[in-house]
Amino acid sequence: MHGFGTESGATLESLAHDGATHPWRAVKAALAHVAARDAGVRAWAHVATPDALRQEETPPGDSLPLCGVPFGVKDVIDVAGMPTRCGSTATPDEPRAFDASCVSLLRRAGAVPIGKTVTAEYAFRAPGPTRNPHAPDHTPGGSSSGSAAAVAAGMVPFALGTQTGGSMIRPAAYCGVVGFKPSFGGVFRDGLALTCESLDVIGWHTSCVADAQSIARILLPYPPSGAGGAALPRRVAVVSSSPDQALELESADALRAACLALQRHGVQCVDIPFDEAHDLARMHGVIMHYEFARSLEPVVRRRAEQLSAGLRDTVRLGFDVSTQAYFEQRRLQATWRMQWERLFGDADLVLTPSAPGAAPRGLESTGTSAFNRIWSVLGWPCLHLPTGKTPAGLPVGVQLVGRFESDHDLLAWGRALHPLLQAAA
Amino acid sequence: MHGFGTESGATLESLAHDGATHPWRAVKAALAHVAARDAGVRAWAHVATPDALRQEETPPGDSLPLCGVPFGVKDVIDVAGMPTRCGSTATPDEPRAFDASCVSLLRRAGAVPIGKTVTAEYAFRAPGPTRNPHAPDHTPGGSSSGSAAAVAAGMVPFALGTQTGGSMIRPAAYCGVVGFKPSFGGVFRDGLALTCESLDVIGWHTSCVADAQSIARILLPYPPSGAGGAALPRRVAVVSSSPDQALELESADALRAACLALQRHGVQCVDIPFDEAHDLARMHGVIMHYEFARSLEPVVRRRAEQLSAGLRDTVRLGFDVSTQAYFEQRRLQATWRMQWERLFGDADLVLTPSAPGAAPRGLESTGTSAFNRIWSVLGWPCLHLPTGKTPAGLPVGVQLVGRFESDHDLLAWGRALHPLLQAAA
Repeated sequence: MHGFGTESGATLESLAHDGATHPWRAVKAALAHVAARDAGVRAWAHVATPDALRQEETPPGDSLPLCGVPFGVKDVIDVAGMPTRCGSTATPDEPRAFDASCVSLLRRAGAVPIGKTVTAEYAFRAPGPTRNPHAPDHTPGGSSSGSAAAVAAGMVPFALGTQTGGSMIRPAAYCGVVGFKPSFGGVFRDGLALTCESLDVIGWHTSCVADAQSIARILLPYPPSGAGGAALPRRVAVVSSSPDQALELESADALRAACLALQRHGVQCVDIPFDEAHDLARMHGVIMHYEFARSLEPVVRRRAEQLSAGLRDTVRLGFDVSTQAYFEQRRLQATWRMQWERLFGDADLVLTPSAPGAAPRGLESTGTSAFNRIWSVLGWPCLHLPTGKTPAGLPVGVQLVGRFESDHDLLAWGRALHPLLQAAA
Repeated sequence: MHGFGTESGATLESLAHDGATHPWRAVKAALAHVAARDAGVRAWAHVATPDALRQEETPPGDSLPLCGVPFGVKDVIDVAGMPTRCGSTATPDEPRAFDASCVSLLRRAGAVPIGKTVTAEYAFRAPGPTRNPHAPDHTPGGSSSGSAAAVAAGMVPFALGTQTGGSMIRPAAYCGVVGFKPSFGGVFRDGLALTCESLDVIGWHTSCVADAQSIARILLPYPPSGAGGAALPRRVAVVSSSPDQALELESADALRAACLALQRHGVQCVDIPFDEAHDLARMHGVIMHYEFARSLEPVVRRRAEQLSAGLRDTVRLGFDVSTQAYFEQRRLQATWRMQWERLFGDADLVLTPSAPGAAPRGLESTGTSAFNRIWSVLGWPCLHLPTGKTPAGLPVGVQLVGRFESDHDLLAWGRALHPLLQAAA
């Protein structure tokens, strides 16, 4: 039995085409894949019963872009009829009455949410039970662990996740799927359990960039790409280091291979020291701690004993951040967001590692967001492209970053570049 | 039995002082006022039982700025142990597990939420049952109807509300209380039922500006005022008309009286035609319709028959707004937000009507947001100051608007000006 994704070669477009004549076929296949494979992966916090799904109206005609396409939803985003547990027993287990806005927009396009995917505790650090589909004793990354693993294991063709630090891109990298984090403010957040209002972004894991584009057309309020479809970028800024995290050999190799491939195709690659990363990491830390503390304090107040010590400590630390310090950083955030030119001149994209290396061994930690949080705080769109595997069979890849609200351009360039990067790896 | 507010002369500061020695006195008084007065006002959607409140820990020592102070919460914001009904039977009636972030921060400061105040259906147009405490056959305004009416009737010393168009300032004007809508992004919104992510703001109704400042110090992440405390503004821009709503005699009189009072105290008042108001009203309409449709679509999908025809129509219309049109307006919104100088030069404040006139007779409509939505879309802080009454006994007043994120300045100036405006009315 083939799963979805790279295994099958089916895109969302071809699945939707099939869904017009066989509306429940892909959904049934997804439920069967989950039943067959999830014991080893543990990507799901909740899976709908066939009965519950039958209560949904049959997905309508073939004019819908996602007709009959099954998907997973990170368990911090509401789906009607399913609980939202946020990776914690502190939350109530009653089913939610309504979908989040983003889930309902996907339903409107014909897609069918089949369940909730595992998240780290409140989309923060304490890992859930999910394992890396490529190596069960390695982390899948987090906090959108289940979404990346479910797509990587071919259980669903796409899944929604969120990113505050590195929670979309890192699990995409560790699990070897395409991960897309839109610009800040791209996807409306009602029905999402907010943890950091100035940082939280809803994104998606898919098995190819074309599929990420299909979702982007439904969920993002940006006009179509001005990048000219499949044309390559002219100039790419390469940021190869992080101020507080060493780059491991396998990520350095993947980045170098990507640069060579780009240059072979006439794309200019310019190394940028990007000393500002240090300030951005600090900016992210101040904003994240201040906001996280205020969003999670209500949970600590009622259910402290059901939360991890790490989460409780982070909330406590967040109340030590002064309002003055927070406000200064939030002002800077708003200013820097608009300063692509100051930071990267006339580069079309940034090329940078998605993670320090391949997925580390062990399930106690989901890894570091050192290569992600600097882009999260800027609110710029980020795209992880898997490009190959380590000798041990773990996925590696690279991250592309685009200008604020140029999400469709980033995706169009990513789609054009992905086969070149895969061929070169 | 005296109620809270202007009737009693007590400020939040004096109530908190009293609360340090008699922690439940003010809460019990509030519950007694609600029991005695709410049959005629109908400001409350849910009131906690004394038993439920006793389960709360006793508010701790007198170092807390709101020790033992009771308050109301608009029924679109979560309070642990109470349902969130959004003024609609479409919503579930189970109690929420956790407070919204803003409610929990107030609890942390010693305040006690005693219940949920009536909102128009999903904070939009269809009125709830609330009556104007000054004249039961007149609207209290909306959508934060219950919050304004509960404070006006002396049932609680303050109440939280929200504004997307004019939902804080208009009911403040109609009910004759101080209404404060912070800058966009001022108060974190987790635990709020979002309807328009680029517009929704949490604010508060109080009976004096000093009390609005007490709440602002707890909830807003802005550094203290640079306006020099009680000093008067030097220069005020007066915007006396709206492109799509005539000003009635009583509001025109209140504005004129306010101008004269300011001039008598050496404040320069400059009439500004503000032709840009037309563009801002359009901007608000496009953004509001696009976002409202996407946030409410999940409710329409499941419970259409429990929603008003007006809400369903608004959702339908919102899907007719093109992504291109929406995105253009959202870009403009971000730009204009920072352009106080272009629009108002070196004026310190804008002085403008809060509503076209005093509260209209009838309970079928909560009135128009014509004098509010242009400021809501800019995201600038707005303060309603009640200044007097019409011969029929209905409250009138004026609105002050400040620069983005200069909330503490606006409040400091409002506090200094309020007695001068009241004396002049």
